[in-house]
Amino acid sequence: MSSSSRVKVVLACDLGPEIMPLLYERKDLELVVWAKDTACDRDWLLKNAVGATALIVLVNNKVDSELLDAAGPQLRVVSTMSVGYEHCNLPELAKRQIKLGYTPDVLTDAVADISIMLALMAGRNARETMTVVNEGKWPSYNWAPFLFCGPQLSATPSHPKRTAGFVGFGRIAHATLARLVPFGFTQCLYFSNPSSPLKPSRDASLCESLRLAPGAIRRVDLAMVAEESDVVFVLTPGGKETNSLVDEAFLRKMKKTSVLVNTSRGSVVDSDALAKALHEGWIWGAGLDVVAGEPKITAEHPLVREPRCAILPHIGSATLETRIDMATLAVKNALAVIDAEEMPAGLDLA
Amino acid sequence: MSSSSRVKVVLACDLGPEIMPLLYERKDLELVVWAKDTACDRDWLLKNAVGATALIVLVNNKVDSELLDAAGPQLRVVSTMSVGYEHCNLPELAKRQIKLGYTPDVLTDAVADISIMLALMAGRNARETMTVVNEGKWPSYNWAPFLFCGPQLSATPSHPKRTAGFVGFGRIAHATLARLVPFGFTQCLYFSNPSSPLKPSRDASLCESLRLAPGAIRRVDLAMVAEESDVVFVLTPGGKETNSLVDEAFLRKMKKTSVLVNTSRGSVVDSDALAKALHEGWIWGAGLDVVAGEPKITAEHPLVREPRCAILPHIGSATLETRIDMATLAVKNALAVIDAEEMPAGLDLA
Repeated sequence: MSSSSRVKVVLACDLGPEIMPLLYERKDLELVVWAKDTACDRDWLLKNAVGATALIVLVNNKVDSELLDAAGPQLRVVSTMSVGYEHCNLPELAKRQIKLGYTPDVLTDAVADISIMLALMAGRNARETMTVVNEGKWPSYNWAPFLFCGPQLSATPSHPKRTAGFVGFGRIAHATLARLVPFGFTQCLYFSNPSSPLKPSRDASLCESLRLAPGAIRRVDLAMVAEESDVVFVLTPGGKETNSLVDEAFLRKMKKTSVLVNTSRGSVVDSDALAKALHEGWIWGAGLDVVAGEPKITAEHPLVREPRCAILPHIGSATLETRIDMATLAVKNALAVIDAEEMPAGLDLA
Repeated sequence: MSSSSRVKVVLACDLGPEIMPLLYERKDLELVVWAKDTACDRDWLLKNAVGATALIVLVNNKVDSELLDAAGPQLRVVSTMSVGYEHCNLPELAKRQIKLGYTPDVLTDAVADISIMLALMAGRNARETMTVVNEGKWPSYNWAPFLFCGPQLSATPSHPKRTAGFVGFGRIAHATLARLVPFGFTQCLYFSNPSSPLKPSRDASLCESLRLAPGAIRRVDLAMVAEESDVVFVLTPGGKETNSLVDEAFLRKMKKTSVLVNTSRGSVVDSDALAKALHEGWIWGAGLDVVAGEPKITAEHPLVREPRCAILPHIGSATLETRIDMATLAVKNALAVIDAEEMPAGLDLA
């Protein structure tokens, strides 16, 4: 088959030896791959997108009218290896009738895992205490009854009530809540986009399947999530609507022994307000997998300077199992459109 | 009441403003308290124990014949604020008919919490990835499909089986297993002291209450725990019988993607063998709350030098709630013996 008769697929990164064979085995495709270990160069992408039928991209590749124009009118699908699609201009895609594939669901468990990890790390002072050991200072500490103590995630017989708060209550929040139940969590308060409908039957069946008391899961206003929760999990999409939802007013309403966990998008939390909250002890600690402005976060960033702030470099979905599943789904989404089949995970742009 | 007619109680540390009033309100007691912020001086303890009816001690206070002789024949109770009692000479206590109080159960949840935290941290490369952020190196990393990836704690649809292994299977292990169930764990293999009886009905009812399949919890030999588990939790008492149970032979049998968690006693794991296992990639990572020889662990310790080893300075029970409960129980144990009542948590020395 000549190059010109083949369907051009452009990949903004090499998806590795487990996934690339799904594409290489297709002799009807012309594959163009950014093969370097660095982020895909914008100029390279604009140049190579020309004539493509499918683009497979990552969160750091902006999908805007410039890129879509550069590709040309034959472009039929953009497939992003991510659950978020803030880097994609949805109206421009819809206008051109280009389909958008993404990778929801497959990363739910990986992100729920790291949400639990960060909740524990924030309460138990993991960054501070690991530093004590790593810097060789353990020998200089003597055991004392309240040394290194933090608030306990689990309920105890003398403190039998625990409340989880969620800003955003989708699949990852549900998976996180399920993991909290055997820690003795008794209540769940969540805030959702005010324009979305109430879901009383969904909440009731979630209570039942998680063996929580009837009514234990309640949709409330944002202030109540802040005031009542022992842990607040930020698990809402990014974008303008959720920008700085967790701001100074929210943080001032939280309990001194509560912790904040953000494993969704950095923009949802006001970094300066959080740094102030930690510095002045409005809350106990924070666990962040995302920070506004990432990855340009230096050692001088106000949150990096707070010892009670455990920060990870956006590794929520970074497990071997999940990334293989995400990459496979991204490839399958692209191939489905090429083969005129339904995408396994396409976003409805209508 | 004159000093001489009061009952002398010696405390190897101040238990803080929440607990000390339980003692101060008792006008029949003469309280002698090591009030400094450092570890209780041995000579001070030997000198002040003279004439005591009760000693309230910590894990770093050796309770041996020298101390018991120094106290004198009127000593009726030693109460340790710990679940472990390796620092106490049990035969010497039994010989003198001195009762021993300790603090089991109240720290179960706090230690189970940190066991889950360390299992997640070991798999998700938390020490390495936090260091990337803390040292300001996040900006130099570009997103790539498998950057920072580690094995996932949770089961996934494409990898639906997960096996937890336990070296020692007491209360803390049960509480840890309960927390793992919503992560999708399907199997539990445990090793117990070979001289202890099989407990098939206990295991069957544990399966049922945790909603695991019948037979999912099985007692096996040590080699099988090593070979089959995705995470191995070391949760067994210290002492000669368990010394270096986790040695080079054990670690060589583990899977390359498995992690080791030790939240019990450092002596159970051979540190040099573990450092070698991490350095040479026999296993994925380790999460330790305890290290043999602690707290004399410097930055040059072979385990501290391994980036895949997340080490905490023995904070398993260090939550505000649990330490208050432990200190309260330690005081109640001592007072019970003074008042000729049954201790809420006394060890049977018979």
